[in-house]
Amino acid sequence: MNKSLEELLKEYELYKNKGLSINIARGKPNKEQLDLSNGLFKVLDENTDFIDETGNDVRNYGELTGTKECKHLFSDIMSVNEQNIIVCGNSSLNIEFELISASMSHGVKGSTPWNKLEKVKWLCPVPGYDRHFAICEYFGIEMINIPMTIDGPNMDMVEEYIKDPLVKGIWCIPVYSNPTGITYSNEVVERFAKLKPAAKDFRIYWDLAYVVHHLYNGYNDEIINLLDEAKKYGNEDMIYMLASTSKITFAGAGVAALAASDNNIKEIADNMKYQIISYDKVNQLRHALYFKEHSLEEHMKKHAEIIRPKFESFLKALEEIEDIAWFTKPNGGYFISLFVKEGTAGKVIQRCKECGLTLTDTGCAYPYHKDPSDSHIRIAPTYLEVDEIEAAAKILTLSVRIEYLLNN
Amino acid sequence: MNKSLEELLKEYELYKNKGLSINIARGKPNKEQLDLSNGLFKVLDENTDFIDETGNDVRNYGELTGTKECKHLFSDIMSVNEQNIIVCGNSSLNIEFELISASMSHGVKGSTPWNKLEKVKWLCPVPGYDRHFAICEYFGIEMINIPMTIDGPNMDMVEEYIKDPLVKGIWCIPVYSNPTGITYSNEVVERFAKLKPAAKDFRIYWDLAYVVHHLYNGYNDEIINLLDEAKKYGNEDMIYMLASTSKITFAGAGVAALAASDNNIKEIADNMKYQIISYDKVNQLRHALYFKEHSLEEHMKKHAEIIRPKFESFLKALEEIEDIAWFTKPNGGYFISLFVKEGTAGKVIQRCKECGLTLTDTGCAYPYHKDPSDSHIRIAPTYLEVDEIEAAAKILTLSVRIEYLLNN
Repeated sequence: MNKSLEELLKEYELYKNKGLSINIARGKPNKEQLDLSNGLFKVLDENTDFIDETGNDVRNYGELTGTKECKHLFSDIMSVNEQNIIVCGNSSLNIEFELISASMSHGVKGSTPWNKLEKVKWLCPVPGYDRHFAICEYFGIEMINIPMTIDGPNMDMVEEYIKDPLVKGIWCIPVYSNPTGITYSNEVVERFAKLKPAAKDFRIYWDLAYVVHHLYNGYNDEIINLLDEAKKYGNEDMIYMLASTSKITFAGAGVAALAASDNNIKEIADNMKYQIISYDKVNQLRHALYFKEHSLEEHMKKHAEIIRPKFESFLKALEEIEDIAWFTKPNGGYFISLFVKEGTAGKVIQRCKECGLTLTDTGCAYPYHKDPSDSHIRIAPTYLEVDEIEAAAKILTLSVRIEYLLNN
Repeated sequence: MNKSLEELLKEYELYKNKGLSINIARGKPNKEQLDLSNGLFKVLDENTDFIDETGNDVRNYGELTGTKECKHLFSDIMSVNEQNIIVCGNSSLNIEFELISASMSHGVKGSTPWNKLEKVKWLCPVPGYDRHFAICEYFGIEMINIPMTIDGPNMDMVEEYIKDPLVKGIWCIPVYSNPTGITYSNEVVERFAKLKPAAKDFRIYWDLAYVVHHLYNGYNDEIINLLDEAKKYGNEDMIYMLASTSKITFAGAGVAALAASDNNIKEIADNMKYQIISYDKVNQLRHALYFKEHSLEEHMKKHAEIIRPKFESFLKALEEIEDIAWFTKPNGGYFISLFVKEGTAGKVIQRCKECGLTLTDTGCAYPYHKDPSDSHIRIAPTYLEVDEIEAAAKILTLSVRIEYLLNN
């Protein structure tokens, strides 16, 4: 019933000559999604009272840890008390970078600065987020692969590795993980809460990038609150939580925040005061006031309505290769992970490229860009126009099957 | 003709009982100044075409080094080519922090990372900007005082100290310097351009914080362009230029940029890509479009009209103590430096505090908060209401004279 290699190659050649240029490499919102938040431009005008709840003019210097109004917004998003939140600029990745940078140069809660240690190691659930791994690479931190299961990272391995005092942290995207789209089970979250690492300055980077980014009504992945759970075991200082509105409002002009224990908030603010006088509180107020008037939940449903059809079309098209490949069917987030025959992912990506379909480079979702089995492909369908999906999926599935046959 | 100590103390007691609360500690714009830029809120609306000159949607990810439009704005402010500019977030202080942080962890243009050296030393023209010195303190960089003259830093000392390969940089605010308000002479700029430091990774941090912040029409301090001058001597890689709109538009929600040589821009962007995906380009576009429609020069004249009377009143009041103190009379910027009798600055500041007048702590304008002669007081009159000036100046001058007499 399946087509022959010859037929497939003939079909593939047709696409090759179409001069297409389609990009499913990055998790970028499309124009229609960005337009959803244009109301932000109406929130503030010349008649605004720019004095925030704390009594400060948001246009001026001051309030290093952010405006109260915006802390309230992130309190809703992250389910953490306002006093445990610091609101920063437009990028949670940047907050993560700064936290690790400060740990390298100054240590964590009085520990030896990491740059004074012979080595620093880091646990990296794989496949994972390339920009997380890039931060480790920048600082020369040795990355250790932790395979992802459908419940989250392999916790047996995590619990084993943290016995090494040089292991100082782990990257986690617990809800609609990048790129698998899976959500950690509550059992996994519990095991994180209970960890007793050899390194007192071990930190869990709990990146809630997609925590409110559900695709289907009534099928929302939800997890228990790690900070609350960890408190039960005296472990609350072990956690840095991150979130942003990058995929809620504007990818490039949103607001990002971190949540942490009382001790950690104090330490982080103490370091921050050397870095900046204050972040952009006008944009913080803009976001806070907007979501006072607009339900965040309804807003996210509008996003879902735009991107759900793209996910559905892509997933439908992938069924074509279900006999030779495996892929995730996420309930939210920005990505689908496709696992093809071992040793062929790089070839598939190259083959797609020749038809004008850009995917992230092979290994992008792995430390050092090395996918040990050369089988993972990350699919980011959001930026595509609906009418591009068919061609993109067709090129991809054709390429997967061709490489499967060529390498059998 | 001068009043007796007894009379002065009696007068002082009157102020002490007035329950005043006046703050001239920080260089903050006042509400009236912030209101000048409220037009920024009208620049963008739902009908805006968010596609910038490069073809990117400013609301989305991308364009790590900033929008072309905003580079053009800073090209005007800094007199540097657009391709030698990177536009970042809302804080030039933050850019400076990041540059030093990267130098500490990764070195400069392939040099040994500074955190691997036995010691790093830094030249600090004094009095200077406390937040600059705080960055050095944070990174454990040893600071060396370089006295300021009315032409800029003592260049004989600078030329001598840079023979030490551990001396890696110098802070400069060449136009309307914080806090003296003086502008470097062109001869001083020339000598900077010609420097041949022993350390190949020595950098001049040329902070143009007040470059367009003139107080008087027709009395604009101007300097020759250091980057152009340095090029003549093959020294262009030695310079990092900084600027921001913090005191042009909103202190807390402006845009900041750096300018540097081709080599440096490449290196800095290479490091930046680990830190952030892109800065807030919406705010960049907002600023760029606003100053396409509004003359920056006229805009700055409006600032001058608001703050000039405050400087004038304060300077007029200071004449009262001209026989026992010395003070700068800047043509722009945000500060006046007052030098009182040696050993009395701290006491004057404390005495002012008791009347409800807050000044920055003694020594704030010196590395390690140590004013060697305990004589400098920084005055920041901009945030004051005009009707507060008289009381503020009176309390200050009274305190200066009382402490002069008490310590004679």
